[in-house]
Amino acid sequence: MNDSTNKVAIIGGTGPQGKGLALRLALAGVSVVLGSRDPAKAEETAKALVTLLAEKDCQADITGLSMEDATKAAEDLVILSVPYSGHDATLTALAPLLVGKTLVDIVVPLAPGNPKAVVMPAAGSVTESAQLLLGDEIPVIGALHNVSAVTLNDLSRAINCDILVCGNDLEAKKRVMALIEKMGTKAYNAGLAESARCVEALTPILIRLNISKEVPFSHAGVRICPPDGH
Amino acid sequence: MNDSTNKVAIIGGTGPQGKGLALRLALAGVSVVLGSRDPAKAEETAKALVTLLAEKDCQADITGLSMEDATKAAEDLVILSVPYSGHDATLTALAPLLVGKTLVDIVVPLAPGNPKAVVMPAAGSVTESAQLLLGDEIPVIGALHNVSAVTLNDLSRAINCDILVCGNDLEAKKRVMALIEKMGTKAYNAGLAESARCVEALTPILIRLNISKEVPFSHAGVRICPPDGH
Repeated sequence: MNDSTNKVAIIGGTGPQGKGLALRLALAGVSVVLGSRDPAKAEETAKALVTLLAEKDCQADITGLSMEDATKAAEDLVILSVPYSGHDATLTALAPLLVGKTLVDIVVPLAPGNPKAVVMPAAGSVTESAQLLLGDEIPVIGALHNVSAVTLNDLSRAINCDILVCGNDLEAKKRVMALIEKMGTKAYNAGLAESARCVEALTPILIRLNISKEVPFSHAGVRICPPDGH
Repeated sequence: MNDSTNKVAIIGGTGPQGKGLALRLALAGVSVVLGSRDPAKAEETAKALVTLLAEKDCQADITGLSMEDATKAAEDLVILSVPYSGHDATLTALAPLLVGKTLVDIVVPLAPGNPKAVVMPAAGSVTESAQLLLGDEIPVIGALHNVSAVTLNDLSRAINCDILVCGNDLEAKKRVMALIEKMGTKAYNAGLAESARCVEALTPILIRLNISKEVPFSHAGVRICPPDGH
């Protein structure tokens, strides 16, 4: 069941978003390696997730390593799931190890102290910022910005929303979309990296709706809908 | 049925988006006045829409005037639906007539010759640009950017998507949301005017999906979805 020839790394994999993604990917039979500044914590988290999935009769392949070793272990896709404050420093450290791989950037530049707003980097978006930092040889794909960690971690429900995926390298984007669709949700090609200016900024709008009392649910997502509305 | 004490103006009302909005609003019993640079064309369009709705047993109140007279005739809400190229000039001309009213800006700054991209104005978005131009005394609310003209004009179907509404004046925003919901769709408070940077930029992403062959439908919209995904 596990496809260990296509191991995916999740950098910042011990946070809520990273853990939720690890669970969903492992459930779909993908081998996952969590990368953390604290390799012992990564290993401990990986074991806890494997135990949790064993209760669901899933033989998950999730391991934990340092950020550097996790990046090296990835076959192609390296998902970056760190707080925005650590985004550039983490990428700078990992850049040499990312050559020949694809970065999946899921980071949203939420305003410090205000999750209902973003402060976009000078490049326009985090995805564009990462692409500038890594250079054109390493494709950067923005994705998974709008799905809440709570949704990802609640395995009693399917993922409630579609995933908008953007980036300048079409082939890399297709590989990321294929990975996302393994989790049972729909991925849409949202265009070039500059679309991340929109997609990243959707997150605080959803957070606002979740916080407000106007909406009869929390953890809102977005769906692309056809003319009949369903 | 018609609520003529609450007449709404649609500036640029003879274009596809304006006509579709006029039809939907009039069907909901709202009095509409179309404003055009060519008042004769506005009047002719208004008559055609009234005839079309009469076939659906709807006694619509739609009239046509010059942009200036339509703005004056509006009780409160003035919807601006002109191509982006004419946005600032139109607003500058109408600004003195907008005092005491609320501008509903639905304009998307699509890139010239490329509807799959936006070129955002220096203010960040068209909504913010309009607010700067009009000054703080005239509330500007951004809305209805993501619903296609084809969808609006196809009265055989309900509007397929939710409407994200943003602006700095909460009371004005609530009035606009109430108007939108008369058309049988759901309006969400997407936050302050700066959210328009995201909401306006969603439109070219949807246009890209419509143009691409990856999506099994055209005229895509977005819906906010709860955790169960429906």
